[in-house]
Amino acid sequence: MTSDITASSHLATTAGSGRRGAQPVDPSRGRLRPLGLHEVSITGGFWGRRQHVNGSTTLRHIEHWLEREGWLGNFDAAHRGRLPGDRRGREFADSEVYKLLEAMAWEIGRTGDADLEQRYRAIVARVGAAQEPDGYLHTHFGRPGQGARYSALEWGHELYCFGHLIQAGVARARTAAEDELVAIARRVADHVCETFGPDGIASVDGHPEIEPALVELYRVTGERRYLEQARLFLERRGTGVLEDIEFGRSYFQDDVPLREASVLRGHAVRATYLAAGGVDLAVETGDDELLAAVDSQLARTVARRTYVTGGMGSRHQDEAFGEDFVLPADRAYSETCAGVGSVMLSWRLLLADGRPERADLIERTLYNVVATSPSHAGDAFYYTNTLHQRVTTTVPDDDRAVPRAASSMRAPWFSVSCCPTNVARTFASLGAYVATADDDGVQVHQYATAEIRTVLPDGRVVALDVETRYPEDGTVVVRVAGERAGTWTLTLRVPAWARGAELVVDGVRTPAEPGAVEVRREFAPGDEVRLELPVRPRFVQPDPRIDAVRGCVVVERGPEVLCAESVDLPGQVHVDRLRVDPTAAPVERDGRTYVRASLLELPDDGWPYRDGPVGAPPVDEPVEVPLVPYHDWANRGPSTMRVWLPTS
Amino acid sequence: MTSDITASSHLATTAGSGRRGAQPVDPSRGRLRPLGLHEVSITGGFWGRRQHVNGSTTLRHIEHWLEREGWLGNFDAAHRGRLPGDRRGREFADSEVYKLLEAMAWEIGRTGDADLEQRYRAIVARVGAAQEPDGYLHTHFGRPGQGARYSALEWGHELYCFGHLIQAGVARARTAAEDELVAIARRVADHVCETFGPDGIASVDGHPEIEPALVELYRVTGERRYLEQARLFLERRGTGVLEDIEFGRSYFQDDVPLREASVLRGHAVRATYLAAGGVDLAVETGDDELLAAVDSQLARTVARRTYVTGGMGSRHQDEAFGEDFVLPADRAYSETCAGVGSVMLSWRLLLADGRPERADLIERTLYNVVATSPSHAGDAFYYTNTLHQRVTTTVPDDDRAVPRAASSMRAPWFSVSCCPTNVARTFASLGAYVATADDDGVQVHQYATAEIRTVLPDGRVVALDVETRYPEDGTVVVRVAGERAGTWTLTLRVPAWARGAELVVDGVRTPAEPGAVEVRREFAPGDEVRLELPVRPRFVQPDPRIDAVRGCVVVERGPEVLCAESVDLPGQVHVDRLRVDPTAAPVERDGRTYVRASLLELPDDGWPYRDGPVGAPPVDEPVEVPLVPYHDWANRGPSTMRVWLPTS
Repeated sequence: MTSDITASSHLATTAGSGRRGAQPVDPSRGRLRPLGLHEVSITGGFWGRRQHVNGSTTLRHIEHWLEREGWLGNFDAAHRGRLPGDRRGREFADSEVYKLLEAMAWEIGRTGDADLEQRYRAIVARVGAAQEPDGYLHTHFGRPGQGARYSALEWGHELYCFGHLIQAGVARARTAAEDELVAIARRVADHVCETFGPDGIASVDGHPEIEPALVELYRVTGERRYLEQARLFLERRGTGVLEDIEFGRSYFQDDVPLREASVLRGHAVRATYLAAGGVDLAVETGDDELLAAVDSQLARTVARRTYVTGGMGSRHQDEAFGEDFVLPADRAYSETCAGVGSVMLSWRLLLADGRPERADLIERTLYNVVATSPSHAGDAFYYTNTLHQRVTTTVPDDDRAVPRAASSMRAPWFSVSCCPTNVARTFASLGAYVATADDDGVQVHQYATAEIRTVLPDGRVVALDVETRYPEDGTVVVRVAGERAGTWTLTLRVPAWARGAELVVDGVRTPAEPGAVEVRREFAPGDEVRLELPVRPRFVQPDPRIDAVRGCVVVERGPEVLCAESVDLPGQVHVDRLRVDPTAAPVERDGRTYVRASLLELPDDGWPYRDGPVGAPPVDEPVEVPLVPYHDWANRGPSTMRVWLPTS
Repeated sequence: MTSDITASSHLATTAGSGRRGAQPVDPSRGRLRPLGLHEVSITGGFWGRRQHVNGSTTLRHIEHWLEREGWLGNFDAAHRGRLPGDRRGREFADSEVYKLLEAMAWEIGRTGDADLEQRYRAIVARVGAAQEPDGYLHTHFGRPGQGARYSALEWGHELYCFGHLIQAGVARARTAAEDELVAIARRVADHVCETFGPDGIASVDGHPEIEPALVELYRVTGERRYLEQARLFLERRGTGVLEDIEFGRSYFQDDVPLREASVLRGHAVRATYLAAGGVDLAVETGDDELLAAVDSQLARTVARRTYVTGGMGSRHQDEAFGEDFVLPADRAYSETCAGVGSVMLSWRLLLADGRPERADLIERTLYNVVATSPSHAGDAFYYTNTLHQRVTTTVPDDDRAVPRAASSMRAPWFSVSCCPTNVARTFASLGAYVATADDDGVQVHQYATAEIRTVLPDGRVVALDVETRYPEDGTVVVRVAGERAGTWTLTLRVPAWARGAELVVDGVRTPAEPGAVEVRREFAPGDEVRLELPVRPRFVQPDPRIDAVRGCVVVERGPEVLCAESVDLPGQVHVDRLRVDPTAAPVERDGRTYVRASLLELPDDGWPYRDGPVGAPPVDEPVEVPLVPYHDWANRGPSTMRVWLPTS
């Protein structure tokens, strides 16, 4: 880890690159330089469709609900002096408006949508009108009848909201001119530095987010005080600056300093956001020790506290990571926002050290957590992403928000509605996670039909068109476009699951081992590199220490985790009756994956623990059962569902 | 069920029996008549030791903490007009004082302890001084600066506290003369009837308890208005009279009326207390339909929502039952108080219908939930009773209360400290759960060294001495004492697990099938009936629908569930490495139970889901591993622990 960072010092720094690429994350140093929305455009396929639905439906859906629930109106009420009387929503309602603004900024940057630009400006004006002369901007605190500013740092979410406001400003600054939103964000950040600086309040926010936001704002503006403020927040947390709570200080990572922790713990969104901020700080300050600490924490988290979907956080009670290997499929919390936080963290580490397994985890999480949240139509969401649905429930009435933890169905909105806006901002900026560059060429990390156009540090222009039906099909064609650019290296990620992958260049077929495969040559326009990834379905079994899924297998196909839904079973029987034959490999037929399975004969009810010979329960004759990608489930009405399938 | 109740109408009613037997539950009709503390005395053995520790240590420990935390002082503060300023603890802190008073009342009734009587009277005086002229008595509501009376029925616990106050009064009325506590309780009950009667507030308390309490007070006093008020509360609940909450109205059983529900659900303590009140009402009003409804709900709950320990409620988030078959060993909630509630419910049903499986579940729950809560010394407790402890933690500092859900160690006190007082009142009254009578004789349900002295309805005196080292040894000797009493029937329960049990009468050995065995004869003083229960250890496996423990077995011995503790393993390795050989029956040697087990070779850390051939993980050479009763665990320092043992 340390040597990677040291080695990277010979790379051209990208600091001050401003809005050249329109990247969500733009470190000044690191192994790889991110290519942003002005350099990578997803033009079709799986993610193209998701981006289209996001832009055409989800953003408007969110805007509608923010108006309807009054969370946008809170800003108007602040401006008109009608708070706290007219205040609606929870402490963190402001942040949803900011995350929508961030999503809009990326979407405008991606598409130039003029209508969206107007809607964006209207919201910015309403937000700006609520900002106080000293820069403070929160609709839930600070007025007569409200709690005092910063009087409830444990639960108040003031700095958390500011962080999202700043991220929205950063997104705008990188995709367009510096406008009113950027100015608002800078005023907020200046206020934060004055209030929480070395001589200010020596505390932190219960919910991390301000930390990476301030580093990004530093990257945009070059203002070092923002970086220093992020450092202060990161160094204070973990020393017990917040009040203890029933869940313990680990809930908001105030139990152990980030630099000293051994694993991600507590509230999973908080933990991943904080770790992301830690990477940002480490990279900007050359703090290899901090970077190594976060790397090691994530490594243990991935090995012991991560669902097969990439989901993080198993507990409903405190939305938290459980102990090592406590990963129940039942009521798996696997919050959508923790998936977003995990992507934020791994992306930063990928830029820092270039290790392909970072992109593996990002891919797994994008397909199986983030893409699972929204419905196909883009107007209903999962907040939690259970891996086992035992009870069929009807779709909720479209006319109301539901509690956040409604994991039995997608809902149009939640009383705590952090996830829809987090999905929206991630999807709108998704192109920026596809590829990176270094001095010598371009690295493609995620496979989507896309156009890549970038300029290498020495001025050479590299242009690539990627065509693929991935993940449905495993063939990825990368075609060189534009002009000749001399000799450079094209690097393609080979996912860890893709044993037997092959690379085809000029008709020559060579094995491509998991990790990354490089093609270094003087590319000519029209040259094609073809990567063939074996996306056939495969059984996967868990570490024997994961008690919750002992004796079960999951079927994966390419980057997708599959599941069984009762709607596909004979007689639509409950999925819990499935017993899969692990000796019969899953097969594909007509574009669907099937497993051989028997149906459990249901025991009579009674005391459910019996003595007598230990053995397998009786089952019926085997049948073939179709599976679907997990991200597709619950799009065909209420169903019971399992990701982990017991073996017979 | 219905026919049982109808058939019971020929039995002598026991209404108005007053404090004859000193029973915690004293229905006016039913299959069996409970024998109370004046009729049954536990004189030694397992439960005798527990009662001794409870009386000699636990009651004083609780009193100490109630003073120290200021929950007793709340009553003084109320009297002196120093509320809300001096108020300490949560909304329901008053109830702990009342549960201590109930425990003291039973203990005084059991032992006649004069010192305890003085301490009891001193507390009653402090409580009484806080009662308001109209009977209202709660230290958290109703004064300037506090919430208005009954302004927060969802979470306020006012009627819940009253219920425990009334139960304390009932305990006193049944064990001694009607004293000041009884008068306080009656004034509270009258206030409740006036305030929540047919023309009063048409609502209920978020936490059931007032319902069984009012029926018991009716049984003591004959005041029918108390019974009618209980009926009103029971009929209102389930119709949505409380505000909806994030957990849903099922949390406090306000989703479906008790009469219409199909299973216990929501908060497990609330659910069992409510169902207990439902049985009380059904029995007193001859409502067979309601009785059948509760019976059916419990049957489904036992078959699908109950841990092998008898524990109920699997969720930390809302202390609630999970869906059917969601019974994770990890972080099993299995709240001690829900165990007490389960015993309350099953005992009422046993009195109503006489079915021996009621006593089986009571026994399982007493040994493996209620007896697990207190430490051997009686001064530290489990609130939750996990079935799998993955992390060793140190014993908490004796100098502070810990959050309620600290399942990694017993703690002296909790910020929500309902369990210690619930254990104390249950243990103090435990003799009353040992035996019952009917017109024709005596039924022994729980096996303990005890003296039983009662009068049958026709005036015959039956006296029995029970001697046993149960559960360590399976032999129970029942010896007839006192005078000849003509022909009568001695009924002994044969637990469901006791296949191969034998009865020995006059040297004649006959098989005793699980259920109950009857000996009807003209007993003479000195006659002995010997029941031999096979308490040898046995493997038990779960219903295949319980995902969380698939591929695991538990070892039971007699009524005790056993567990493995790391302190007993070679090198004190983590219990998660155990893989038990299910083909080698567990054996006993020198009073300990051993299983044959191998140690799992730990995989390297990394992505914990692997493809490749599905098979069992590698293990080391088998060794013999000792187990201990689950209720004994964590008495030898920090340890990892498993109840469910994976098979190799």
